[in-house]
Amino acid sequence: MGGSTKIMPNLFQVQATDGQARVGLLRTPHGQVETPAFMPVATQGSVKALAPDDLMSLGAEILLCNTYHLMLRPGIEVIHGLGGLHSFMGWQGPILTDSGGFQTFSLGRLQRVSEEGVLFRSHIDGSSHLLSPEMSVEYQARLGVDIAMVLDECAPYGVEEAQVRHAMDVTHRWARRCQEVRRPEGQALFAIVQGGVSSALRLESAASLVSMGFDGYAVGGLSVGEPKATMYRVVSLMGETLPHNKPRYLMGVGSPEDLVECVARGIDLFDCALPSRVARNGGLLTRRGRLNVDNAPFRERPGPIEDGCDCYTCRSFSLAYLHHLFRAKELLAYRLATIHNLRFVVRLMEEMRRAIAAGAFAPFRERFLSEYRVTDEEVRRFQKERWIEAQVKPRKSKGDS
Amino acid sequence: MGGSTKIMPNLFQVQATDGQARVGLLRTPHGQVETPAFMPVATQGSVKALAPDDLMSLGAEILLCNTYHLMLRPGIEVIHGLGGLHSFMGWQGPILTDSGGFQTFSLGRLQRVSEEGVLFRSHIDGSSHLLSPEMSVEYQARLGVDIAMVLDECAPYGVEEAQVRHAMDVTHRWARRCQEVRRPEGQALFAIVQGGVSSALRLESAASLVSMGFDGYAVGGLSVGEPKATMYRVVSLMGETLPHNKPRYLMGVGSPEDLVECVARGIDLFDCALPSRVARNGGLLTRRGRLNVDNAPFRERPGPIEDGCDCYTCRSFSLAYLHHLFRAKELLAYRLATIHNLRFVVRLMEEMRRAIAAGAFAPFRERFLSEYRVTDEEVRRFQKERWIEAQVKPRKSKGDS
Repeated sequence: MGGSTKIMPNLFQVQATDGQARVGLLRTPHGQVETPAFMPVATQGSVKALAPDDLMSLGAEILLCNTYHLMLRPGIEVIHGLGGLHSFMGWQGPILTDSGGFQTFSLGRLQRVSEEGVLFRSHIDGSSHLLSPEMSVEYQARLGVDIAMVLDECAPYGVEEAQVRHAMDVTHRWARRCQEVRRPEGQALFAIVQGGVSSALRLESAASLVSMGFDGYAVGGLSVGEPKATMYRVVSLMGETLPHNKPRYLMGVGSPEDLVECVARGIDLFDCALPSRVARNGGLLTRRGRLNVDNAPFRERPGPIEDGCDCYTCRSFSLAYLHHLFRAKELLAYRLATIHNLRFVVRLMEEMRRAIAAGAFAPFRERFLSEYRVTDEEVRRFQKERWIEAQVKPRKSKGDS
Repeated sequence: MGGSTKIMPNLFQVQATDGQARVGLLRTPHGQVETPAFMPVATQGSVKALAPDDLMSLGAEILLCNTYHLMLRPGIEVIHGLGGLHSFMGWQGPILTDSGGFQTFSLGRLQRVSEEGVLFRSHIDGSSHLLSPEMSVEYQARLGVDIAMVLDECAPYGVEEAQVRHAMDVTHRWARRCQEVRRPEGQALFAIVQGGVSSALRLESAASLVSMGFDGYAVGGLSVGEPKATMYRVVSLMGETLPHNKPRYLMGVGSPEDLVECVARGIDLFDCALPSRVARNGGLLTRRGRLNVDNAPFRERPGPIEDGCDCYTCRSFSLAYLHHLFRAKELLAYRLATIHNLRFVVRLMEEMRRAIAAGAFAPFRERFLSEYRVTDEEVRRFQKERWIEAQVKPRKSKGDS
């Protein structure tokens, strides 16, 4: 085990910039990640419907898993006993784990937030669990992941500034405690900037966490139902504020247009369940926007989802076959659609990296956004779903803490 | 299009025998099949949860698809317009299609059997459809498959001999009509022997169909709820009776022990949904019998499903991970379990071919059956399910015909 607060000097290197956009290289014990990068979400230790070889084939370089889900099932010690999360999942590339904070809030099972940590009920069997900052990092250490996240408190969108400030202050105190936990050699620890949609609080949060010194900085508490323009404003501020030489990770984003807009604002890492979730509902990403595989004319459409796409699905099958598989509810449908959507997003990141390196990101961005028809409504709905249960079941007063 | 009743002289060659068991080679327009062979079932144009590359990797050489399902969705002309069934599915190996007869009876949507054909309701939207012998072969011709089956009438197990005889006689007259339909060059046509569990009727049916001359002979109307010993008796009789130089296909079988017992009785081809269906329910095949992935001790089991198994699942993942995926209802679970079970069955066929070629089939059979714990109950239930709806909803009197 390495020293608890040691910063990793060689974790990240910016290799090219174009405006605020950057190309970088992230070095982890399980390999390198070229940034900007999109992390497919393997919540329970599996990207839904895909195997590790699918993920390698489509060019994914790093995955995100959820400490919350894995601690409840199969349990951290089961995974540790089987050689750690990489061995358990059969994925030998880098893994970042979320700390569990977001899930305990958003799954609506929150019982109490105190200075000690989060008390919540399992969504599986209703049992009570405490998650403290120390436990969260300890769990991530036991999982053996490449990048661990601090436990944070994320205030819902639309609450009073006092509540946002309180959550932010708790997040800072927890971040400090997370630093004190011993982690395996080479495991990075990222802090999470909070502060809602207030520029002042965001600047305060960033300054506070940067002064503590972390291997990287995430922007949390966005993509939770706020207007897009508001999110972009906060992301811009973070891109201008966070240290140039550290990786910046925007949590829970995104849709293709958000990926482009936030790379433009200096973000290096993204994760989002949206591309894989809409795939399983028959929403297929293309350069012109999303299409619905269920549309009647696709019944006889001979070509691939999108001409020129190099994914396994587009190389092997017609849109007509996918349409049939979805209509017939064949399990293969979900795998093929997920492969396509994740390849679409991973390829978008590759293209952005090339454009940035060539100093041609502005025209790339303009062309992409002019061609891509945004499905605002669904993105909104998706963001709201992330919080809906928490809003239905308001958590107890902060007086508990 | 070739001549309608032309027999293909080079379709099949017996290469070795050991007792009644045979090793053979089936030559089709889409490649060779070594027999005895197991055909995974791709009912709706997809082996549930698997893609064509999975099937190639696990050694499947030929698939079975269902004319009944494909005619209703997406429709024969849609598939024809997209270049035929091979192109539609992305599977370039041989395909055999069932004629649709069995499904119209067993799905319990039967409205009327007449001399003309079968009138049935779609299980999708309740619409009425006629399937005549000519239409069935024409559809299979339009699909462009390698082996077409005649339309047959299959009497349920346990009905009076007069009804069995009637279904058998209809089957013979329909077989003759099927021969008259023009098919693509190289497409083989197999007849289906009926006659229930009566040895006399089975001999009569075989003699009648053999005198007409077909490319191969299937044994239908078994594995529909009759005792195992009865099935083995009829299969033995067929193995002794059907022409030595033609492929013999036992429809709807089997479980591992039935595959071994029926290869011993001279069968060359098998299809069955059981290995893939039990996989999706967490039943995993091993040399010692079936195990249930859900068993609590498997939560921490580090090794593969079975030591020595060469399937992708066993080479890549622990039983503990599979247990977790099933518990968490992750879609990947169904693919990994199906790969294992189909590889188990395909490997069993490979081992039987080697044993027959080496003149060592008897000890192989003895060893396999002594180690393999049969799960009789589930096999019985599976067989009953194939007919249950037909029994619940008895069809109209034969007076209609």
